[in-house]
Amino acid sequence: MTADIWDVVVVGAGLSGLSAAHLLRKRDAKLRILVLEGKDRVGGRTVSLEIPAADGVDRWDFGGQWVGSTQTHIMELIKDLDLEIYPQFNAGKKVLHVGGPTSKVRVYQTSIPALSPLVFLDFTQLLWKVDRLCKTVCIQDLLRTPNAAELDSMTLHSYVEQNAWTGELKEQLGVCSRSVFGVEPSQMSFLFFLMYAAAAGGLMALLESTPGCAQEFKIKGGTQQLSECLAQRVGWKNVRLGSAVTAIWQVEYSNLCPVVAYPSAKIQYQPALPSMREFLTQNMPVGHMMKFIVTYQTAFWKEKGFSGEIVAGSSTDCPFCVTFDATSPRGNPALVGFISGQQATLWSTKEAGERRNAVLSSLERYLGPEAASFIHYEEKDWAQEEYSGGCPVNVMAPGLLTYYQPSLRKPCGRIHWAGTETAMQWCGYMSGAVQSGQRAALEVLAEVCHVALTAEEQEALVQGQTVKGPPQQTPLSRLLNGLTRKSVAIPVLTISAALLLAQVKWQ
Amino acid sequence: MTADIWDVVVVGAGLSGLSAAHLLRKRDAKLRILVLEGKDRVGGRTVSLEIPAADGVDRWDFGGQWVGSTQTHIMELIKDLDLEIYPQFNAGKKVLHVGGPTSKVRVYQTSIPALSPLVFLDFTQLLWKVDRLCKTVCIQDLLRTPNAAELDSMTLHSYVEQNAWTGELKEQLGVCSRSVFGVEPSQMSFLFFLMYAAAAGGLMALLESTPGCAQEFKIKGGTQQLSECLAQRVGWKNVRLGSAVTAIWQVEYSNLCPVVAYPSAKIQYQPALPSMREFLTQNMPVGHMMKFIVTYQTAFWKEKGFSGEIVAGSSTDCPFCVTFDATSPRGNPALVGFISGQQATLWSTKEAGERRNAVLSSLERYLGPEAASFIHYEEKDWAQEEYSGGCPVNVMAPGLLTYYQPSLRKPCGRIHWAGTETAMQWCGYMSGAVQSGQRAALEVLAEVCHVALTAEEQEALVQGQTVKGPPQQTPLSRLLNGLTRKSVAIPVLTISAALLLAQVKWQ
Repeated sequence: MTADIWDVVVVGAGLSGLSAAHLLRKRDAKLRILVLEGKDRVGGRTVSLEIPAADGVDRWDFGGQWVGSTQTHIMELIKDLDLEIYPQFNAGKKVLHVGGPTSKVRVYQTSIPALSPLVFLDFTQLLWKVDRLCKTVCIQDLLRTPNAAELDSMTLHSYVEQNAWTGELKEQLGVCSRSVFGVEPSQMSFLFFLMYAAAAGGLMALLESTPGCAQEFKIKGGTQQLSECLAQRVGWKNVRLGSAVTAIWQVEYSNLCPVVAYPSAKIQYQPALPSMREFLTQNMPVGHMMKFIVTYQTAFWKEKGFSGEIVAGSSTDCPFCVTFDATSPRGNPALVGFISGQQATLWSTKEAGERRNAVLSSLERYLGPEAASFIHYEEKDWAQEEYSGGCPVNVMAPGLLTYYQPSLRKPCGRIHWAGTETAMQWCGYMSGAVQSGQRAALEVLAEVCHVALTAEEQEALVQGQTVKGPPQQTPLSRLLNGLTRKSVAIPVLTISAALLLAQVKWQ
Repeated sequence: MTADIWDVVVVGAGLSGLSAAHLLRKRDAKLRILVLEGKDRVGGRTVSLEIPAADGVDRWDFGGQWVGSTQTHIMELIKDLDLEIYPQFNAGKKVLHVGGPTSKVRVYQTSIPALSPLVFLDFTQLLWKVDRLCKTVCIQDLLRTPNAAELDSMTLHSYVEQNAWTGELKEQLGVCSRSVFGVEPSQMSFLFFLMYAAAAGGLMALLESTPGCAQEFKIKGGTQQLSECLAQRVGWKNVRLGSAVTAIWQVEYSNLCPVVAYPSAKIQYQPALPSMREFLTQNMPVGHMMKFIVTYQTAFWKEKGFSGEIVAGSSTDCPFCVTFDATSPRGNPALVGFISGQQATLWSTKEAGERRNAVLSSLERYLGPEAASFIHYEEKDWAQEEYSGGCPVNVMAPGLLTYYQPSLRKPCGRIHWAGTETAMQWCGYMSGAVQSGQRAALEVLAEVCHVALTAEEQEALVQGQTVKGPPQQTPLSRLLNGLTRKSVAIPVLTISAALLLAQVKWQ
């Protein structure tokens, strides 16, 4: 039991929570900030692990790995932390397999897959329609998007059924849905899909590894470093690992501000959150993704003129939806791939060996028999990761954004919401995590120390409707109570933190 | 801290959990059964409260209230508990208001609303189509429903948009969705809707108060009695109120069986549930419903020839979607109504007085100025009810049933699943709660005491694929550990129960 007193408690030591803590620390060194994290590590949905490789061992990202030059928030952070990036290798032939297990495997060089004239026409008209709709999306207030209710009442699947003509394109859009969101097109609101694409600057930005797109660069040494460096700056003594917040209670006579950067429905709130916020929290399912890295002695695919990029539709018997070259900056050859959505659900019920064999068989089929001679196969099923429950992002089912989205970023009493799901730029990405964490930090500063904000920042907060009113200047009296740490006989550690706060008024 | 040892721990003292406990107790009096309930009362989403009425005070149901003659499980329980039922009053004129706030309010006598010939034709063709689809639904294994993936990939809204021709019918289907599920047609998988209707015997059975339908009878004295009587039979000393289960840990060397009759995503499981089950648990949002009772000195609506039934579409400015006569068995006049779905979300943000005035204005408009002279207005917002979070039922968004439904009733290790969401008959209703609780109890008996099952019951369990294999006959050694009860300074009581079980094998 600690009797410490804190000004801000950040729930979740992922990129968003730590970005919030970091900005708060930078702006007001006197603020007493505590970051609570359920896992025994920082980084949330980013984790970098060492595995056997050609020259011994090397490090790969088993969670979020890519950044892009238009992702300004993460790019600034990378610069600030003095980390290095390198481009995703994408030169050479790409492989496309859709249309059933026995259909022809196609090979192409352009960024747009080798499509028949009809499918290409279909792709072009659909992309045009979707991008036109993307441009109408008002991310800040989705209800101002023309026809928002109708767009939010259908699944991505329904839109594609109505607007794509060819089965092949429909199957490829399934691959897009799985590789970007970890869910099937049937599980997502079409408006959510549009918002996500709009927040990235368009649909192609989500899918491509070309300049400005989501898969442009990787970070030398891995993305988990971002969180580790941030934790260093915040001060490791202020970051408590193995400390899962299970309840947040707001009481009178406290001004403590929690920043919740953990998109979980498992936290109990007292008093209960407003219905709108609670329904939203309970209705943002996370995707299901398994990521694998296979290391090799030589990058045989490059030698054969392949880029390492494979796209495989769900009608094939291939477990993964997409792979890329993952050769490390040190030159250790590797491929990275994803088993995702319904395929993750199906394949996660099988034995690890069976799954690995199926992945390798597919790699052999698409890239040649050399794929069988791998050094090491390592996979991570994010659904099994405690306090994540899935990857890469929490999505929204139909009928949520238009009814509940106004509460997505709106503080509840003194609780502020971070997490990439609440981002307005590159929502769902690492960059969105940083942006949302910084935005939440500014909201907190507006409450506890508004002189730390620039005039522009204050203006932006008001415009973003993320502050509740004029900044309060009551003396800071804070109390964190009931924080207990228990280690139990079975290998599980839980911490229940009750944050007791002041003068709750839901607005 | 208790060191008691139990054979079965039931999570949730609603109708389902208590039905499970009751059947277990009846079949094997030696079983040590503990029922844990977070609320300070039994009954779950049923609660009966006294409010001022014409002759003083009287009791009304503020949660589930109706039963029907085809709901065999609840009807048998009512008989077994020696409770009395009485029919829902439905004689006289009904009111229908759709098509915008200024449109004509229509009055009709039949069970099918006063529709124009075109809308009637539209209604007939849609009902025919939906009922034909209902008949193809395989409730036991939804994947065997023809075209299951496609039906599950669209929302009810998308189906209606594609298959109904008239705006008026579409609006009425919105009322159906809100009044039956507490959600909008956009928030629900069309396959889920079909399954729900099929489990009730057809779409009209959900909507009607005629014989065999969902709104046929009420229970004298209220529905909460069902749970109270069951708790009595199970033994109140075995029912612990104010005891919310926050975690279920399964460990070696214990044979304790938990029966989870609480459809919440807030329980932490150790080891983690299989991905399929966890995704399902995290993806069954509950509806949002506010129920109100208005008591009167006289049943003025009956005197004027009205039944008390009003249907109001969301295009009107009426907050409620539907009302019925709620005159008590003792003759105290009352009306009952529901504010539901998006309307509940909107109206719950307003002051109670404003909401009450809007309800009464609408009643005045539809039934006459006498509606203004009420004795008492009482409402219950189920979204504010702790450990329920909403009402009447947890629904499924698109893309869940076909991917995850196989795990809906499948035990996880020794954990068995009850709750009306898991029912195969009258899913979502009180009858489904009883049926699912009894089914879970039979599953437990098959494990711990299979001689207590009849041959038919064993056969049914195997057919229902709800048992994992041949019943185990290992000696019963059980352990419930770490059950702590804490009362804290602020008016909140939480209990964390860690259930430690044996030889976990997810199958």
